[in-house]
Amino acid sequence: MTDNRIIALLSDFGLQDVYVGVMKGAIAQINPQLKVIDLTHQIPPQNIAAGRFCLMNAFSYFPPETVFVAVVDPGVGSQRRGVAVQFAGGYLVGPDNGLFSGVLSLSPAIAAVELTNSDYWLSPYPSSTFHGRDIFAPVGAHLASGVPLEKLGSPIDPTSLVELPLGFYKMTENSIIGAIQYIDIFGNLITNIPATAVEDKRWSIAIANSIVPCGRTYSDVKVGEIITLVGSHGWVEIAVNGGSAKSQLQVDWGDLVEVVYQTMS
Amino acid sequence: MTDNRIIALLSDFGLQDVYVGVMKGAIAQINPQLKVIDLTHQIPPQNIAAGRFCLMNAFSYFPPETVFVAVVDPGVGSQRRGVAVQFAGGYLVGPDNGLFSGVLSLSPAIAAVELTNSDYWLSPYPSSTFHGRDIFAPVGAHLASGVPLEKLGSPIDPTSLVELPLGFYKMTENSIIGAIQYIDIFGNLITNIPATAVEDKRWSIAIANSIVPCGRTYSDVKVGEIITLVGSHGWVEIAVNGGSAKSQLQVDWGDLVEVVYQTMS
Amino acid sequence: MTDNRIIALLSDFGLQDVYVGVMKGAIAQINPQLKVIDLTHQIPPQNIAAGRFCLMNAFSYFPPETVFVAVVDPGVGSQRRGVAVQFAGGYLVGPDNGLFSGVLSLSPAIAAVELTNSDYWLSPYPSSTFHGRDIFAPVGAHLASGVPLEKLGSPIDPTSLVELPLGFYKMTENSIIGAIQYIDIFGNLITNIPATAVEDKRWSIAIANSIVPCGRTYSDVKVGEIITLVGSHGWVEIAVNGGSAKSQLQVDWGDLVEVVYQTMS
Repeated sequence: MTDNRIIALLSDFGLQDVYVGVMKGAIAQINPQLKVIDLTHQIPPQNIAAGRFCLMNAFSYFPPETVFVAVVDPGVGSQRRGVAVQFAGGYLVGPDNGLFSGVLSLSPAIAAVELTNSDYWLSPYPSSTFHGRDIFAPVGAHLASGVPLEKLGSPIDPTSLVELPLGFYKMTENSIIGAIQYIDIFGNLITNIPATAVEDKRWSIAIANSIVPCGRTYSDVKVGEIITLVGSHGWVEIAVNGGSAKSQLQVDWGDLVEVVYQTMS
Repeated sequence: MTDNRIIALLSDFGLQDVYVGVMKGAIAQINPQLKVIDLTHQIPPQNIAAGRFCLMNAFSYFPPETVFVAVVDPGVGSQRRGVAVQFAGGYLVGPDNGLFSGVLSLSPAIAAVELTNSDYWLSPYPSSTFHGRDIFAPVGAHLASGVPLEKLGSPIDPTSLVELPLGFYKMTENSIIGAIQYIDIFGNLITNIPATAVEDKRWSIAIANSIVPCGRTYSDVKVGEIITLVGSHGWVEIAVNGGSAKSQLQVDWGDLVEVVYQTMS
Repeated sequence: MTDNRIIALLSDFGLQDVYVGVMKGAIAQINPQLKVIDLTHQIPPQNIAAGRFCLMNAFSYFPPETVFVAVVDPGVGSQRRGVAVQFAGGYLVGPDNGLFSGVLSLSPAIAAVELTNSDYWLSPYPSSTFHGRDIFAPVGAHLASGVPLEKLGSPIDPTSLVELPLGFYKMTENSIIGAIQYIDIFGNLITNIPATAVEDKRWSIAIANSIVPCGRTYSDVKVGEIITLVGSHGWVEIAVNGGSAKSQLQVDWGDLVEVVYQTMS
């Protein structure tokens, strides 16, 4: 047993086609001992912001040195760079389009390279539409097998990596204006307001003509009722006990929310 | 290679979000050598009965000592207990809400603990909404790595575990009244009537104003035609060759069925 | 660590039920060290042609000696044979219904057996509806663990294996008439016209009253615009940059397309 690193995969490829299976085949061709964990392959198509959110919230639950290979890549085949980045939690491999800017806002880049060394690709002539299979998965497999970052391409300045800003939020003395940055499969609405902003406070949320009371856990309200709480991701969240807040409130990605502080009594 | 046990995961988290990936990350942080097999993550949201059915029908196909970590948990954050249970086929880890009562009706509990020892959790302060990541996956990883059951918490009486009754069924001399307990992705209707009840008999099923003839395999009838047979789960099942019995009969979970014995001729 | 082969799984079972999990459990019972990679389990139900396409396009990305276990099996329980086939890329295990004829058109069979030796099945009395669990997964696990092909059953003539023809296509001096053989999750239309037919040429495609111009990569056209190119599978493909060609053109599996060559200028 060598000391292989773990590979975590994220993409918008879905599970209907063999795209993900083929990336894993390409990894196994390079090193059949590597362990691959799927983060998700159901990022909404080409939604870089959703991919960024998922990576940012997931990375800290993985072992040190994990290699995150992420492919949400609307610009495949264009001039966007392919990159590998070292950070305190491990490595990031994928397109340089802001997908990694959430992780790196929490744990800054230590070093980065542009992927220019085709010795570590599936072939020196990658397809122009599937860099996940032809470049990113193979590079990830080599990195997870111990190839040093600097062999994978030309060093670049980490500050040159594309940043995708987290949606706008604004604090005043009595309230915070923010937005829905992610909606999960249960219809829970995850805002861009961090837990720290409501720490030690009681608050409610105004959204879509409703006022949502706060609590600690879903079951603090009856089945079918709405609640705001600090979710497991560490963000202020809006949920319906046993139902979908998205459906009940008829809201969508990016919609505005307002946290209003309540005086303790 | 240590003698690790296999972990089998079941949940209603879906595969869209990173919830399942993060549970696997938490497992790999504890022991990167552990092998994890997904049972399914598409249990209908909060449908404990469906989770119970799936576990009951799947467990016997896994190696001895497998650790089943199952999270269908509408009561997360409330007073419901988290438990680990030893049985002849291995271990069960999850909420004490009846999810395990199908398995345990076939293979009784040998010992059980309430999960009270936070040394084996992700952190001593778990989130109130995601015990899958914070408690059940880490406890499962420790159990699969060889930690003895009794270290995980306080012993409890296995007879105190919550039971979720299998839907009602009633046998008379000439017929059995039962119900649909599960509908699979093909639209096959799986009743709560066990194979043993129709052994050595010919029968038909009355359901939704139709009479369904029995057979041995889907292709005993023409494409588009309906049939009742003993399915691969070991229950009386209703299927359409090449189609969906659910759509064709317009029936749903819990609907009643009547098996009528036929005289041999 | 023994020298196990990798198992790649493909089916139309979906991920909602525990069918796939149970196949993996059955594999782990035989050899818990085996590594299993999912190709896809979302082949449209009973669509042998789609399964054939996926296997044909995926197999070459896997390590030598990989054991492909594929179950798209509308004839389960009927007289169709179960087979294991050796070819240059590894082994194929599943029903003999044409599922493997795409792979074997590119890399011919070396040897084949009909699966008649129940010593390598889950039990000598398999269910009549789930050979994936009862026969194909166990046989695949034994093959991946080193059991020789000839022990699994009676040798058969590889030329007797069922062939499923790739859809019709016809070349003339100035054009090629072909058909859509696969539609992926993005709505990309993959024709049955191989890349070699358009090599060194400029061309456009006539489909559904539209003329589609050719390019090299999705981003050669603006977002929302349609393009034809050689896709990552190696077939002529029709795509919409950032959208779905299937929705935009209102076309479906099997619809005709015409490649028209353009004179260089």
